[in-house]
Amino acid sequence: MTGGPRRTGRRPGLADTRGRILDAARHAFGERGFDGTSIRQVAADANVDPALIHHYFRSKQQLFVAAMAFPVDPSAVVPAVIADGPPEHVGERFAAFVIGLWDRPEVRPLVTGVVRSASTDPVAADMARRLLTEGPLLALASAIDRPDAPLRATLAGAQLMGVAIARYVVRMEPLASMPPDEVADLIGPSIQGYLAGDLGASSGRSQR
Amino acid sequence: MTGGPRRTGRRPGLADTRGRILDAARHAFGERGFDGTSIRQVAADANVDPALIHHYFRSKQQLFVAAMAFPVDPSAVVPAVIADGPPEHVGERFAAFVIGLWDRPEVRPLVTGVVRSASTDPVAADMARRLLTEGPLLALASAIDRPDAPLRATLAGAQLMGVAIARYVVRMEPLASMPPDEVADLIGPSIQGYLAGDLGASSGRSQR
Repeated sequence: MTGGPRRTGRRPGLADTRGRILDAARHAFGERGFDGTSIRQVAADANVDPALIHHYFRSKQQLFVAAMAFPVDPSAVVPAVIADGPPEHVGERFAAFVIGLWDRPEVRPLVTGVVRSASTDPVAADMARRLLTEGPLLALASAIDRPDAPLRATLAGAQLMGVAIARYVVRMEPLASMPPDEVADLIGPSIQGYLAGDLGASSGRSQR
Repeated sequence: MTGGPRRTGRRPGLADTRGRILDAARHAFGERGFDGTSIRQVAADANVDPALIHHYFRSKQQLFVAAMAFPVDPSAVVPAVIADGPPEHVGERFAAFVIGLWDRPEVRPLVTGVVRSASTDPVAADMARRLLTEGPLLALASAIDRPDAPLRATLAGAQLMGVAIARYVVRMEPLASMPPDEVADLIGPSIQGYLAGDLGASSGRSQR
């Protein structure tokens, strides 16, 4: 094994060790979540001394943040998602992008790791909020220029979190095994409705 | 403290102990989920010997199942929800019932406990599926008599799970602090769409 395309100028041997720790951490957090993962266990999986993990990452939370770094920042794609078609389907295009991203084999452990951990660890909860609701969805909702953008982003974010749990974590069928574009197609109208539609059962909260 | 309305014929002292263990377990599972809760901790909170918990409940999973028992089975209300108004708003009525139930102070720890645990524990995941998707939502979807009832129930269940996480666990604002009827009003159309609408972005999966 050589160092591979790591981002730092460290010597290959060290970069390789760091990469092995991160791979083991991604696997452990993805399978068992933050609470269920111990540094000792990650060290054993990566075949390194636990002290080395503390040396590189200081704490389990910092290891989590480093291991769960997404390869693509969903916020960065927002302008392209907006420009890529008619405004009345922007939520559907974003749903397709997100499910496509989450389905990538190297991204799945990040999704399950964040979702499994968000319910017990505040750092993971913040990460989920930032990656989804306060990042791309708020940008989308604001660009669409309807009132209540933060509420719209939160509703769309809750919908996507529910799909993440159902599809990747609890694995509810038929949602879990369905092709990604079909999932996006099914949940797209809800995302679109939350981002751009009239909110509320009686089409319009102003009536309340 | 007297025994209260416990269901068994045990002597008051014992019933009381059992109730105290269940209260402590509900609190612990609700706050920290299945993995984050230990029998030793519950025993300390309930001021009993851990051996007594093993005696009553055998295992942490059986303690979990007993502690998380919902006071109302959502499946039992399905006929009333169907009968209570026009079919084109049945999903909205079910959303109002569920959010109203989840918001009850004695039910919240059950919701957070099941959601926090479902992502790491198979028994909790089964419980979530049974309580929501394979129970009431499948009954509703089947009663509505459109094709793909299991898929419809899963989509509506994923939507409700997402709201449970966002509102009670990750506590995303403004969803977390909103009155329950307003939440039901906002997510009702999605639930209705999943249960009874044309599925898919281009209104109809048959076009695929």
